[in-house]
Amino acid sequence: MNTFGTRLKFTSFGESHGMAIGCVIDGMPAGVKFDEEFLQKELDKRKPGKNTFSTPRKESDRAQILSGVFEGFTTAAPIAIVIFNENAHSKDYENIKDLFRPAHADFTYFHKFGIRDYRGGGRSSARESAARVAAGAVAAMLLKEFEIEVQSGIFSVGAINSKLDSAEFDFDFAQKSEIFCLDPKLEEEFKQEILKAKKAKDSVGAGVYTRVKNAFAGLGEVLYDKLDSKLAHALMGINAVKAVEIGSGIKASQMKGSQNNDLMKDNVFLSNHSGGILGGISNGNLIETKTYFKPTPSIFLAQQTQNIAGENVLCELKGRHDPCVGVRGSVVATAMVRLVIADSLLLNASSKLEYLKKIYKLF
Amino acid sequence: MNTFGTRLKFTSFGESHGMAIGCVIDGMPAGVKFDEEFLQKELDKRKPGKNTFSTPRKESDRAQILSGVFEGFTTAAPIAIVIFNENAHSKDYENIKDLFRPAHADFTYFHKFGIRDYRGGGRSSARESAARVAAGAVAAMLLKEFEIEVQSGIFSVGAINSKLDSAEFDFDFAQKSEIFCLDPKLEEEFKQEILKAKKAKDSVGAGVYTRVKNAFAGLGEVLYDKLDSKLAHALMGINAVKAVEIGSGIKASQMKGSQNNDLMKDNVFLSNHSGGILGGISNGNLIETKTYFKPTPSIFLAQQTQNIAGENVLCELKGRHDPCVGVRGSVVATAMVRLVIADSLLLNASSKLEYLKKIYKLF
Amino acid sequence: MNTFGTRLKFTSFGESHGMAIGCVIDGMPAGVKFDEEFLQKELDKRKPGKNTFSTPRKESDRAQILSGVFEGFTTAAPIAIVIFNENAHSKDYENIKDLFRPAHADFTYFHKFGIRDYRGGGRSSARESAARVAAGAVAAMLLKEFEIEVQSGIFSVGAINSKLDSAEFDFDFAQKSEIFCLDPKLEEEFKQEILKAKKAKDSVGAGVYTRVKNAFAGLGEVLYDKLDSKLAHALMGINAVKAVEIGSGIKASQMKGSQNNDLMKDNVFLSNHSGGILGGISNGNLIETKTYFKPTPSIFLAQQTQNIAGENVLCELKGRHDPCVGVRGSVVATAMVRLVIADSLLLNASSKLEYLKKIYKLF
Amino acid sequence: MNTFGTRLKFTSFGESHGMAIGCVIDGMPAGVKFDEEFLQKELDKRKPGKNTFSTPRKESDRAQILSGVFEGFTTAAPIAIVIFNENAHSKDYENIKDLFRPAHADFTYFHKFGIRDYRGGGRSSARESAARVAAGAVAAMLLKEFEIEVQSGIFSVGAINSKLDSAEFDFDFAQKSEIFCLDPKLEEEFKQEILKAKKAKDSVGAGVYTRVKNAFAGLGEVLYDKLDSKLAHALMGINAVKAVEIGSGIKASQMKGSQNNDLMKDNVFLSNHSGGILGGISNGNLIETKTYFKPTPSIFLAQQTQNIAGENVLCELKGRHDPCVGVRGSVVATAMVRLVIADSLLLNASSKLEYLKKIYKLF
Repeated sequence: MNTFGTRLKFTSFGESHGMAIGCVIDGMPAGVKFDEEFLQKELDKRKPGKNTFSTPRKESDRAQILSGVFEGFTTAAPIAIVIFNENAHSKDYENIKDLFRPAHADFTYFHKFGIRDYRGGGRSSARESAARVAAGAVAAMLLKEFEIEVQSGIFSVGAINSKLDSAEFDFDFAQKSEIFCLDPKLEEEFKQEILKAKKAKDSVGAGVYTRVKNAFAGLGEVLYDKLDSKLAHALMGINAVKAVEIGSGIKASQMKGSQNNDLMKDNVFLSNHSGGILGGISNGNLIETKTYFKPTPSIFLAQQTQNIAGENVLCELKGRHDPCVGVRGSVVATAMVRLVIADSLLLNASSKLEYLKKIYKLF
Repeated sequence: MNTFGTRLKFTSFGESHGMAIGCVIDGMPAGVKFDEEFLQKELDKRKPGKNTFSTPRKESDRAQILSGVFEGFTTAAPIAIVIFNENAHSKDYENIKDLFRPAHADFTYFHKFGIRDYRGGGRSSARESAARVAAGAVAAMLLKEFEIEVQSGIFSVGAINSKLDSAEFDFDFAQKSEIFCLDPKLEEEFKQEILKAKKAKDSVGAGVYTRVKNAFAGLGEVLYDKLDSKLAHALMGINAVKAVEIGSGIKASQMKGSQNNDLMKDNVFLSNHSGGILGGISNGNLIETKTYFKPTPSIFLAQQTQNIAGENVLCELKGRHDPCVGVRGSVVATAMVRLVIADSLLLNASSKLEYLKKIYKLF
Repeated sequence: MNTFGTRLKFTSFGESHGMAIGCVIDGMPAGVKFDEEFLQKELDKRKPGKNTFSTPRKESDRAQILSGVFEGFTTAAPIAIVIFNENAHSKDYENIKDLFRPAHADFTYFHKFGIRDYRGGGRSSARESAARVAAGAVAAMLLKEFEIEVQSGIFSVGAINSKLDSAEFDFDFAQKSEIFCLDPKLEEEFKQEILKAKKAKDSVGAGVYTRVKNAFAGLGEVLYDKLDSKLAHALMGINAVKAVEIGSGIKASQMKGSQNNDLMKDNVFLSNHSGGILGGISNGNLIETKTYFKPTPSIFLAQQTQNIAGENVLCELKGRHDPCVGVRGSVVATAMVRLVIADSLLLNASSKLEYLKKIYKLF
Repeated sequence: MNTFGTRLKFTSFGESHGMAIGCVIDGMPAGVKFDEEFLQKELDKRKPGKNTFSTPRKESDRAQILSGVFEGFTTAAPIAIVIFNENAHSKDYENIKDLFRPAHADFTYFHKFGIRDYRGGGRSSARESAARVAAGAVAAMLLKEFEIEVQSGIFSVGAINSKLDSAEFDFDFAQKSEIFCLDPKLEEEFKQEILKAKKAKDSVGAGVYTRVKNAFAGLGEVLYDKLDSKLAHALMGINAVKAVEIGSGIKASQMKGSQNNDLMKDNVFLSNHSGGILGGISNGNLIETKTYFKPTPSIFLAQQTQNIAGENVLCELKGRHDPCVGVRGSVVATAMVRLVIADSLLLNASSKLEYLKKIYKLF
């Protein structure tokens, strides 16, 4: 299904080499200030072709708002955003028309649907993520009303891992860094690792850290729409993601309870191993997640594979690809987390009678 | 929300110390053989009080099927299963009525709802998971018709981690192991680690590996109900889970594309770093996940915390708790994966016209 | 599917001759006063065997609350209600095991599922509606907090139709009437019509009028979950319903715009042809619907039909059936409308930023 | 919410005077022949400005397919269709900016959202229905593969009602009739009634009959997504609809069981009072519904109303409006029924194990 979210729903459409990609965001409350400039800025972060660390394909990714906004505010009508594709190189894909690119969705889509749009990877292309970033930007407009902020950055590239504690990550630096690096000391090493892979016609993986500042306590719906469940669902669903951690993640499983439990004193949590989520609901602390991206499947080295007829063939890709998909993936991680938090904020509005009485003036 | 799934829906209800817990499974196709003995056997795996490695609370967990089954087969009507609670010790919870147990949902539930059932943790209690195991067993009855099998086991306890490759895990051994251990060489060390924590009035975390054998290619719905997304959602939603990996997980992010891509030759995948899922859809390979449990929050050491009035207090728990919640959690992991795979199997039935024509006899 | 509702979800389970019927209501906000006495009273209204105008089958319909209520208030956890079946006469159904009762779901269920529980009509039995009435009573507890009230009554039986305008219907009378009659002058005629049909081993249809008092303006979600859509969905879904009207209904189609438009003056609507709903959203006026029940399919006259083998056979029913299913159906209409209004009330909580700011104290 | 459907989902977006209207259809199985010419033809049926019986506003309603179709077949990716608005006369709405047009959604939208797009009625405008017609046309492409056909026509205008039995309605005639009239003898009277109302600056209501030919038995999901429920939901949700009947509708409530029950003999139903639906599931017979449209709210007579400030004012509309919205509404009725039937067809694919085994080749 192509719809994500429960109360704030996001439906995307469009293929990499089709006419356009876009999305419909449904459920935004009326009266939220709509910042089109901010939306475009977020899309630009994700845009390909900006530097040597991402794919050379150039798109301007200009968003057109088709509906749902009136005199600068949301109307509660669905917000449709369309981005017309400009720079599709279909002929780059001609030679791989009938074969299954390794580690791509070609094989699975073909088996599931019997049809696939081979050009540019169709729906499985990372270009579709522009729609997610647009939707995430809209969600951010709602979060902004409550000073809730979502930020992401890179903390590992390949086997190079930052030793910093998450509290030490430098988000100001990441904002200016071409690869959104959170550890200033490692930026050069990260860049070299990516260029090395690129030069070798290969690719490399990365780790993305995302945090949510100022989230209220109480977000998340028990038991099967818990906040951590929805975050995991959203993040694991990003192209190329293979692991998700909340708070201390895997390290938590290696600890004792006496070490892992976050104690409270004087209205403050003394630690945050939980990553801001307890029992699936936010506790008011910083929400912290880590998302791990595998290396870009599309590499330029020749690879052993098969084609539709079942014959063994060699796959030699052309086209323009990210050597490290996790870098731009961090922008998508931010977008997805924005959508989840905004959705939870809306759902939480009906969780207790006290809230309903405030709204309906009977308190 | 308390409903999980898209086509195969599972709604659970009941509190730890209420009269009963149970579930309603809706969407099972008619005509599936219903194996009540198997259902009870699965519940027994999860049952507390069986050995010294889990909580001493004794429950017989006898399931009663209230509807949806007729002459041994599913009718497509919703299947309601109820398990009456027998052994609730409410007075164990009297002394913690007004305080927030560290790392529990007490704090967040109180903030979200303004009311909480303090006895036994109410809805956040692990006992609710009996409902999930029951539902998972029903899903397994459908999977069995297609020889699809889901299995789980423990591969790490605390800081002790198996060095075996997942292909070497011993599931026969795990079936008989009291702690579902997948690495025979480590069973004794694992047990000692758990008992050590228990003796110290503490708890310890664990890692669970789950695999799906014989899953077809084609399962998973693009783009926002991908198989890996749904698995992450389901697994991260289990009590105490803090990280989920698919296939090579975090290791994938440390590799190069040339290392991580699974190549194909002679109709076989030469590796399985993807964990059986590409582009969010199964590729016919073994589906592999890892789920990481934090240590049980409930420990018997005194812990610093606060109460409802905002005062600093000491939390000294009574009651009966698992020293390592990941052990019985592995049974829940199996259940949740069963539900996801079965759901995907149903949804996939309408993915191509060819399928519909087979059903409606016009092919 | 067996789940109804968007934010306030209601899942029912159970068969007519199975062990029990019941429901799970999920989404009730925490803090609502739970009135168990009221719940039981509502069930008693619907109960069979009370008088000569309904089926002689006797059930006490005692509801057991399994979860979701704590110290007399809702906790936001799902509320499970179970009603154990007492008085099932399975042998009444032995002789019709293999044939399709005319106008029943036997034929369609058999074709859809290949299996059916012939005893008592399985899931299609009107007894399942006890679950709906229970859920509707819970929804009413929320509505009560806002003084919103839903009431139903009978305005037509067979071809006998009340001439009163809806504003003249007597609800106090209907409360005491054995057949919930809204027109005191017609009660005796209605009763005679039902008894006449019963005596002739036949059955007769009826028309139910339902109104909602004190509903706020603003309920209903555009565009595909409009209030009138949801009401139509809910009412048409009641066993034996064949038509639904909102406000002036069919009469509206026979009018001119100048006659049908409800004008406003001095903050009051000068008429209510819209039935309280404009553009799918409530306008604060009385919400009015009419639901039309076909005559009970189960009659004791011999009827021509076929059996599973395709042979022409005669259907001669035994058992105990309502001669006019619309009478007790009016209680179900009230229940379904309660669920829809309550659901809309919850959804509306996130429709504008102003509401969210009130809740989150930033206004 | 702006999404309709369970498995086949349809999300619409766009405002009457915004840049464009459109929709996303998600869930179409792969491999269905996509007929763009047919789609455009269906839109042309609904197009305004074609004759004197509808609004003079002229739009070409040219649909652009943005995604989901590849080499003439559906790919299972979402199908996005956009129709750019050409002929918006915003200044026609300037004078009514602050008042509530009688019988329009202005009042309710304003109360619900605090914001409304006054130009052309925003989201409540009938122009949005072009999106529904487009989506319905796509659904029809799936139905066509199974020879299932949905048709609609007018059987009443104002108080003039056809006396024909539904079996006598002339669909060939309706296809060519400017007002889709089903009763050749009444076409001239109907037209005169509409012109009379138009001349009087007024409007008039209408009744639409819709039938589904060749639907299989077995469509519809018990208990809360029954076919009749979904049809009622869909039809009642069309702008200006105030009543929906299935089969004999209200007449059924006036009959005896012995008259209303459809008997079976020699594998044929001897009547069709049920309208093709029993127990909420189709029985293979012709599916028949009637949808009743109130007269167009927008009339040119001066009407008493109020404005945002609560003052009594006179509403004098300009603009271009249908004198009988039911005429073009019949095209929308066809579209909505197509969507419901197609959705049910997809859902039914997983109703019994036998179907799944056919698909997965294990029968």
